[in-house]
Amino acid sequence: MLKSPLFCGPPLLKGDPTNDRFLKACRRQPVDATPVWFMRQAGRYMKVFRDIRAKHSLLTVCKTPELAAEVTLQPIERFNFDAAIIFADILLPLEPMGLNLEFVKGEGPVIHNPIRDKAAVEALLPVTPEEDLGYVMEALRTVRKELKVPLIGFAGAPFTLASYMIEGGSSRNYLFAKTMMYSEPDLWDLLMKKLTRVLIDYLSAQVAAGAQVLQIFDSWIGALSPEDYRQNVLPHMKSLFSELKKLEVPLIHFGTGTSMLLELQKEAGGDVIGLDWRINLDEGWRRLGEDVAVQGNLDPVLLFSPISAIERRVDDILRRAGNRPGHIFNLGHGILPETPVEHVEAVIEMVHSKSARILKGGT
Amino acid sequence: MLKSPLFCGPPLLKGDPTNDRFLKACRRQPVDATPVWFMRQAGRYMKVFRDIRAKHSLLTVCKTPELAAEVTLQPIERFNFDAAIIFADILLPLEPMGLNLEFVKGEGPVIHNPIRDKAAVEALLPVTPEEDLGYVMEALRTVRKELKVPLIGFAGAPFTLASYMIEGGSSRNYLFAKTMMYSEPDLWDLLMKKLTRVLIDYLSAQVAAGAQVLQIFDSWIGALSPEDYRQNVLPHMKSLFSELKKLEVPLIHFGTGTSMLLELQKEAGGDVIGLDWRINLDEGWRRLGEDVAVQGNLDPVLLFSPISAIERRVDDILRRAGNRPGHIFNLGHGILPETPVEHVEAVIEMVHSKSARILKGGT
Repeated sequence: MLKSPLFCGPPLLKGDPTNDRFLKACRRQPVDATPVWFMRQAGRYMKVFRDIRAKHSLLTVCKTPELAAEVTLQPIERFNFDAAIIFADILLPLEPMGLNLEFVKGEGPVIHNPIRDKAAVEALLPVTPEEDLGYVMEALRTVRKELKVPLIGFAGAPFTLASYMIEGGSSRNYLFAKTMMYSEPDLWDLLMKKLTRVLIDYLSAQVAAGAQVLQIFDSWIGALSPEDYRQNVLPHMKSLFSELKKLEVPLIHFGTGTSMLLELQKEAGGDVIGLDWRINLDEGWRRLGEDVAVQGNLDPVLLFSPISAIERRVDDILRRAGNRPGHIFNLGHGILPETPVEHVEAVIEMVHSKSARILKGGT
Repeated sequence: MLKSPLFCGPPLLKGDPTNDRFLKACRRQPVDATPVWFMRQAGRYMKVFRDIRAKHSLLTVCKTPELAAEVTLQPIERFNFDAAIIFADILLPLEPMGLNLEFVKGEGPVIHNPIRDKAAVEALLPVTPEEDLGYVMEALRTVRKELKVPLIGFAGAPFTLASYMIEGGSSRNYLFAKTMMYSEPDLWDLLMKKLTRVLIDYLSAQVAAGAQVLQIFDSWIGALSPEDYRQNVLPHMKSLFSELKKLEVPLIHFGTGTSMLLELQKEAGGDVIGLDWRINLDEGWRRLGEDVAVQGNLDPVLLFSPISAIERRVDDILRRAGNRPGHIFNLGHGILPETPVEHVEAVIEMVHSKSARILKGGT
């Protein structure tokens, strides 16, 4: 069992977290102020990031540990975020599985050999994370040495990864993925099992390399009906989380459009459940129960509004969270490329100062 | 007050509905079998439709009453649907308002002069439906003479239309639309009011031309938080529905991804509320209350599955609806272009025969 939030994962390094709000909130322990970080906080809204991306492709940044470490650290140096998330892409593990992945400008990810039949699922290769994805672990080790806040590792969840593998990219209707799920349930299960195996190994390697918290991105799970999730996804998510639990780091379970899946997501696992802006934070937390922490839930588009409008919504979220321990402030999905940096700065300051008052019992 | 479902809208015509299951279900009256129709039932999954679209653009079909009437009737002639919906597009009213609308192959709708500032909102033109959109009313009159099932007229809701007008087409994040809503609430209100005015006149003209039921498509409303909806959309939807109520035809209020908006949608108005597959039908209906009818909620992708998988899901939906009056079977969103026609036929037959047993008190 864990004795303290700081004694999880690998041994402490020189310069390890002096700011442990985020780890405490993951475990629903009292904090002085609500911790805040943003999904995609290493991203195009920062000029220093755009400068690097002007010279290197997304895949090159991911695969060059010095670059991945540099962009991971940029938002931590610039803003008072309470956690860092390693710069990587959820689709990286698909390459060593045998998929031909490309990021096409303006189109997003494209998989040139999508998985549509039994032969393709059976041909998927096993993955040895330290060999096949060693650049991610190297970046984690590099970042960990520099950080004063906790470091988050992450991966896509089996459904979300399967949807890209089968569709060949982003999708509106998930026609091919759902059709495999409905028409060939055994094949679907085989694919999900293979993905779950890869993810357990990959995420375990991330923790060994220094990740102190893991976030599982099931970003597109909101496309499914509750019955679809229960039958075709939940068993695999339970396997995944029950293995990850052995790593003894806090686990964040994230999705979007999941208002009707929250109870099932909780059943699947996770110490923290992500909420997007489509549900009021207090209602989502009530449905989940107070024995899990929650993360969310500002609409990323709100960061484009005047400060007064942002402030009203931040107030609303913090008021709904109240003074219960276990709220991590975040956006409901990734920060958008054109977001004004001064609004990012303002939100972090607002969350820290306003929540400090609320947590002291004020308003 | 209405005396009978058949005495709504314009006077009865020769050949008027002998099948009034759909109208009865809209009013939560007992029926012999659950009525069924599909959104986009006049569509590319039918060869006769593709043959017409091979010769004419989407806008040409909409603007040629004989063609619009022909494609409206095609699915009624081929299948046992319990209602027809006039063939049109929700974006048609934007043209006479001054927007330059084009349907680009593979891209969907494009608006070449999106509305992004006060001058553009103020420059929007008023619409006289019988003059500016007379082709829709002419198609309604033509179809009504031929039909043995009730005829549905429709329009997009103000938010959904505004999102296209501001974004200039389909959108993933609704960045420009939400930013207007958050940053310039007065301008947003003016735009919503102008749209509401146009929609009241347009839908009233549709009823005068023979529409016996109206469906309001707020297709993209699920992108909003409950607070966004309450502040920026609900007042306009209330105005719209309170005016439409005077037309004395059943009103269907449709959206997708609306699991957390259902109570607010009900407050806005509608005799029937649409549910998509993301919520179990019984839970959605419980949340709405039994004083409204519900429409839904099969995932359109399920129609690509083997009959046995489809049947399990149809059974599940009908079982959740039970023998309460007021369920209209539909998809959770429009039927997809490549859907196998024999599966459409099979679902209609399943719904009718299975529901007839359930409604008689069997299982």
